[in-house]
Amino acid sequence: MAEALRVALAGLGTVGGGVIRLLDANAELITRRAGRRIEVVAVSARDRTKDRGIDLSRFDWVDDPVALARHADADVVVELVGGSDGPALALARAALGAGKSFVTANKAMIAHHGLELAQAAEASQRALKFEAAVAGGVPVIKGLREGAAANEIGRVYGILNGTCNFILSKMEAEGRDFAEILAEAQALGYAEADPTFDIDGIDAAHKLSILASIAFGTQPAFGDLKASGIRHILAADIAEAATLGYRVRLLGIADAGAHGLFQRVHAHLVPLGHPLAHVTGSTNAVVAEGNFVGRLLFQGPGAGDGPTASAVVADLIDIARGEYGPPYAMPAAALAAQPAADSGERRGRSYVRFTVADRVGVLAEIAAAMRDAGVSIESLIQRGVSPDGSALVAIVTHEAPERSIAQALEKLRGSQSLTGEPMWMHILDA
Amino acid sequence: MAEALRVALAGLGTVGGGVIRLLDANAELITRRAGRRIEVVAVSARDRTKDRGIDLSRFDWVDDPVALARHADADVVVELVGGSDGPALALARAALGAGKSFVTANKAMIAHHGLELAQAAEASQRALKFEAAVAGGVPVIKGLREGAAANEIGRVYGILNGTCNFILSKMEAEGRDFAEILAEAQALGYAEADPTFDIDGIDAAHKLSILASIAFGTQPAFGDLKASGIRHILAADIAEAATLGYRVRLLGIADAGAHGLFQRVHAHLVPLGHPLAHVTGSTNAVVAEGNFVGRLLFQGPGAGDGPTASAVVADLIDIARGEYGPPYAMPAAALAAQPAADSGERRGRSYVRFTVADRVGVLAEIAAAMRDAGVSIESLIQRGVSPDGSALVAIVTHEAPERSIAQALEKLRGSQSLTGEPMWMHILDA
Repeated sequence: MAEALRVALAGLGTVGGGVIRLLDANAELITRRAGRRIEVVAVSARDRTKDRGIDLSRFDWVDDPVALARHADADVVVELVGGSDGPALALARAALGAGKSFVTANKAMIAHHGLELAQAAEASQRALKFEAAVAGGVPVIKGLREGAAANEIGRVYGILNGTCNFILSKMEAEGRDFAEILAEAQALGYAEADPTFDIDGIDAAHKLSILASIAFGTQPAFGDLKASGIRHILAADIAEAATLGYRVRLLGIADAGAHGLFQRVHAHLVPLGHPLAHVTGSTNAVVAEGNFVGRLLFQGPGAGDGPTASAVVADLIDIARGEYGPPYAMPAAALAAQPAADSGERRGRSYVRFTVADRVGVLAEIAAAMRDAGVSIESLIQRGVSPDGSALVAIVTHEAPERSIAQALEKLRGSQSLTGEPMWMHILDA
Repeated sequence: MAEALRVALAGLGTVGGGVIRLLDANAELITRRAGRRIEVVAVSARDRTKDRGIDLSRFDWVDDPVALARHADADVVVELVGGSDGPALALARAALGAGKSFVTANKAMIAHHGLELAQAAEASQRALKFEAAVAGGVPVIKGLREGAAANEIGRVYGILNGTCNFILSKMEAEGRDFAEILAEAQALGYAEADPTFDIDGIDAAHKLSILASIAFGTQPAFGDLKASGIRHILAADIAEAATLGYRVRLLGIADAGAHGLFQRVHAHLVPLGHPLAHVTGSTNAVVAEGNFVGRLLFQGPGAGDGPTASAVVADLIDIARGEYGPPYAMPAAALAAQPAADSGERRGRSYVRFTVADRVGVLAEIAAAMRDAGVSIESLIQRGVSPDGSALVAIVTHEAPERSIAQALEKLRGSQSLTGEPMWMHILDA
């Protein structure tokens, strides 16, 4: 049998601990599958004395993560520190610079610096792998990079943030509003104390930009990506969507066409006949549409120590087997620079909900703004007045350019009739 | 750039034609992803003169498939001939014996002879790949072999036959009976003129035995697998299942525990909360449950020239990249010989439907047989008498060993009360 693959591990939080527990628990099986043992030889974390329920005395402890990255006994460095820059990036550069392979679960760092790191990995002919960075335990990077490799991918989209999907499914099941469910999720540890990255769509955006590069063979372009989240979705929106035959999901969606690369994280109405409508709780799911294979779906646990560790160790097994190549499925130099698409040109159906004052002429004003922008209305529902005197008006439009909807909303801005910001959601074209 | 990967292709039916069309259409993209060109250099098929809408003049034509397998210019041989033995197997042995890599979509051959072929591939350090043999375009073999490689897989199951799922979903949507829908599917080309392999579960069984080996690290054991199909499912069964909150799906299901390897293809009631309940039409879907990752789902088109060609070419890209290893995720010698589990020991809930004569004492007889076998009944529905004078009795049992249900059915065998064979379906434990 070949010599063991020797791993230096930076970061001993829940995922780092999970990786060590997994390597211990499944050691014999992993050795059979990888053709050699995979052994942690050195670790680094902020606090050496913290009790993590794992015997760390068998590993070399290195205080300085950058020193760990250059550890003489390590073939591969695993980074589970987090953060797009700072120590994680220093560690990544040091490891690849020292000729080590590098595995990370760090979506923010890959979204911002993936191309530079891929070039470094290529230069030293080492692996750079980040399966755990997207959709946790779901092998979707492998699915795109290898499984769907024969296809031109027209569109990739999915449910990329488990916290948002957990909140939306619970709002749906219980008819309660966002703030209540968020507070509950925080108390249960399902949402962070500062949930901004999750609920405002930034975490999903990091993942989407990684998927888009691999799917389309384009240079990572996180800066071009527009993201919004779920903060302003009401239980009433979810109820209206249900009566129309839809479920509300926060989707990351990207496509590459003649007009450029489109990437966006935005709440959508998903028709009940679509598999993403049935993805509930913190599960993640990604759809890729290929020109020969058609529609593929990859689904599973998007976070947690076990699933994330599963993806990290899968990357280590690929490295142990010697089965890896360019991280973006092609050499970094072959990735195309693609301009950002103008989203105003996109055509689709939309759901727009207004909170309005209970006064004469409100509907006429909204309808006129839509008409003047050339947007045709498929259905309009007004629901009764709530205790604060406001009412809801929900519109579903016929297919229209997004620019036109934006024009209508611009025209209504500042209207005395509206008591809050309109909520605009796209209807997934399934 | 490295030299082209040169392919000899045997079989120019719909899938063979699809492979050539895909390699033509996506040539530039595939070259970027694979790092080299993938070029068909020689082909073989039964009829040279048939018009396939493809220019074959650019390929060397070889009449004898075994001679093709040894073609001096080929690095890899693709077999799309079909059949578990005969020419396909001769071709496989010749190709691997001549030191070529080998790619096939042939589930029957891999189910029966996969271990022998894997040993031959290992001996010559060449690739043996068969992604297209299971679930068409869905990269589930890669998902298990690599994506979930860090996990002990407890159970793998799914919808593995698109024809059956097409028929069951149509029966469900239209409330019509099996024979009618089958005839329609045959007329439309969705079902074979001789549909036995599909509708009696044999095709799904081939695929399941391949998945089980890779998931569990056990030697292929197609001979131990029990399969049944969907011929005897009535529209009334699907309707009863619906009232109980289930959909009827033909599932291949395998697990590996202390009691041995269990593999079976059988109709199941799938709860509406399970993703497989929402898989309709000819789509395939596979679930794998890992001890760290939890439940993964892979879903997509299970057949057709485009999806199957997508999987075949994905295998070729892996070979072009040099990213392949033992076909069953570990060396053939490391696969464990696992005895077949005794299905009588399995515990679960069941649905059993009887067609009964309209006479006094029928229900008492059925209930007594269940009671005597120690099976507790959760619900029992009798529906009104049909024009031929028979009625339906549908039972859902509490959890019970399968042996007990079998005993009850054995006791009822030959009863004057029953006008046909009982239909027994398992309820998926989600």
